[in-house]
Amino acid sequence: MTPPTQDSPFLRACRREPVPHTPVWFMRQAGRSLPEYRAARDGMTMLAACTRPDVITELTLQPLRRFAVDAAILFSDIVVPLRAVGVDIDIKPGVGPVTGKPFRNEADLARLRDLEPGDVPYITGAVTSLVRELGPTPLIGFAGGPFTLASYLIEGGPSKNHDLTKAVMYGDPGLWHALLTRLADITAAFLRVQVSAGVSAVQLFDSWAGVVGPDDYRAAVLPHSKRIFEALSDSGVPRIHFGVGTGELLRQLGEAGADVVGVDWRVGLDEAARRVDVGKALQGNLDPAILLAPWPVIEERVKRVLTQGRVAEGHVFNLGHGVLPQTSPDVLARVTDLVHQESARQPG
Amino acid sequence: MTPPTQDSPFLRACRREPVPHTPVWFMRQAGRSLPEYRAARDGMTMLAACTRPDVITELTLQPLRRFAVDAAILFSDIVVPLRAVGVDIDIKPGVGPVTGKPFRNEADLARLRDLEPGDVPYITGAVTSLVRELGPTPLIGFAGGPFTLASYLIEGGPSKNHDLTKAVMYGDPGLWHALLTRLADITAAFLRVQVSAGVSAVQLFDSWAGVVGPDDYRAAVLPHSKRIFEALSDSGVPRIHFGVGTGELLRQLGEAGADVVGVDWRVGLDEAARRVDVGKALQGNLDPAILLAPWPVIEERVKRVLTQGRVAEGHVFNLGHGVLPQTSPDVLARVTDLVHQESARQPG
Repeated sequence: MTPPTQDSPFLRACRREPVPHTPVWFMRQAGRSLPEYRAARDGMTMLAACTRPDVITELTLQPLRRFAVDAAILFSDIVVPLRAVGVDIDIKPGVGPVTGKPFRNEADLARLRDLEPGDVPYITGAVTSLVRELGPTPLIGFAGGPFTLASYLIEGGPSKNHDLTKAVMYGDPGLWHALLTRLADITAAFLRVQVSAGVSAVQLFDSWAGVVGPDDYRAAVLPHSKRIFEALSDSGVPRIHFGVGTGELLRQLGEAGADVVGVDWRVGLDEAARRVDVGKALQGNLDPAILLAPWPVIEERVKRVLTQGRVAEGHVFNLGHGVLPQTSPDVLARVTDLVHQESARQPG
Repeated sequence: MTPPTQDSPFLRACRREPVPHTPVWFMRQAGRSLPEYRAARDGMTMLAACTRPDVITELTLQPLRRFAVDAAILFSDIVVPLRAVGVDIDIKPGVGPVTGKPFRNEADLARLRDLEPGDVPYITGAVTSLVRELGPTPLIGFAGGPFTLASYLIEGGPSKNHDLTKAVMYGDPGLWHALLTRLADITAAFLRVQVSAGVSAVQLFDSWAGVVGPDDYRAAVLPHSKRIFEALSDSGVPRIHFGVGTGELLRQLGEAGADVVGVDWRVGLDEAARRVDVGKALQGNLDPAILLAPWPVIEERVKRVLTQGRVAEGHVFNLGHGVLPQTSPDVLARVTDLVHQESARQPG
């Protein structure tokens, strides 16, 4: 007998099996758009929240009390595994990840040691308690992708053009590949901890990889994402791969070893289905800014995404990027219900 | 007899005619990467510099003293025409265009009156003197595109996701189209002033239009860009159209009425040539960050762009976005010479 979580619409869609309705979750469904999130975080830094199992558990569950979403996603941050191996990286409110000592040369590689399960006990603790609490609802684990992590380390913080990162990528391939190999190993170990503790799927967020052209992605990034996904090939959990503005890279995101390719709003899901290889499900892709428009506009756009998603071998409804802070939680609840009702009428 | 400017490699390439060598210029070739620019701007605000014909002339000519580029581009800023019709918009150093009173409703439309040639005498003055100074070298005029101008007005300043702009675009099409029609008319008038004064080509920079998906671009932006280009159809000068991350929009950028479509580094020029309609030249597309790498890497990449550009009906070599401030002027000089030498060997 298939256990109930394995039989959930979310995992069925990831495996490209028929579903009773299109499953839906939202990137950043836990977070600044929820008043109860701001209350629970009150006075606590982001990294403090990310290292306390009770807080991780609470923040992960909050959106499920409001929305009938088909999956929870672990509350965490892409810098957590870096901090866990001792990198002096912090999350500055209103700015993002910052490090006082950016990575610039071979000597900096020594600052990246391997990640052991004992480095992230709060992850193991939170996932264990969440899996118990969630019952049949799947929990998605996640980590940042190699280009994105490298960018934060090299730039020292968020960057518009990722110039310094690209200067290393283009100009010093030796250092670049050594750095991304270290990051891939840390990331793979971090995701394996999550899988061992019980997550049902993982998503690799290579958020900023879309600033790299296809040939450079193939040479400089793909081998490292592949290394991460290969380290999870015996995990039995679906692997999702996403980055913003990656229309030119969709096939490669799949080729890296993903079962599900995340798509932003710049490419319709019907076109995305043509770009990826056979055997890939798609996730996405409503523009988060649509949720700031009046309901009739939202309704029409949600239906359009569902229609285009029917071309895919499997479709997990999501936004094309994270929930914007000014989004009304009521709108997210309504979109969730609409996706369910509308897709149940014409099951995939 | 063809006048010498009309016979320049730059204008010949724009018209898809054979050239003795591939012409080259750099977006932001005048600017922060040149020490003489910083000296000339010393103590002067950006908008002060943009409204003094002598300063505009000097800053436009500076790069031509250093690089053997095939065209000059008028030193100006996309907010100049808005400021000229009385919008309270300024350029904040290190930030970009900011307005204290963002556009939010129909009443704000009254703040956008028509632009008359008399509003921008410094443009007419500078172009007239530049054309005289430049001799056979073409001068490119420019303006900001409708989405990009709307974004600065609605957001009140530079924006990462253009959320407020999209909220109007998706949620209030009436206000959106009224605003973009006003902006298109101002932009067309501003470009006509430049053409009347003697520029040999114009470029419309819709820098941020790439955050809009293809269907929305067609409905919400294309009609307004078309309106601008149509207003210039009797001008006799080539029209260039560029935005960052517009891989999905290349055909539409051409369809708007451009003779030359600008391409960023995410799409190879060979692939871009397949995406645009017949009868379009291409401009681009070296990643500006390549110029921070060692020379052998730059050399190989410049040659690759030239090779891919041979597939296009006409090719103007450029970067895929503006020159980064930390770029060495010597590298720009060397790239210019390399483009000329390499392409002269295998003329297009």
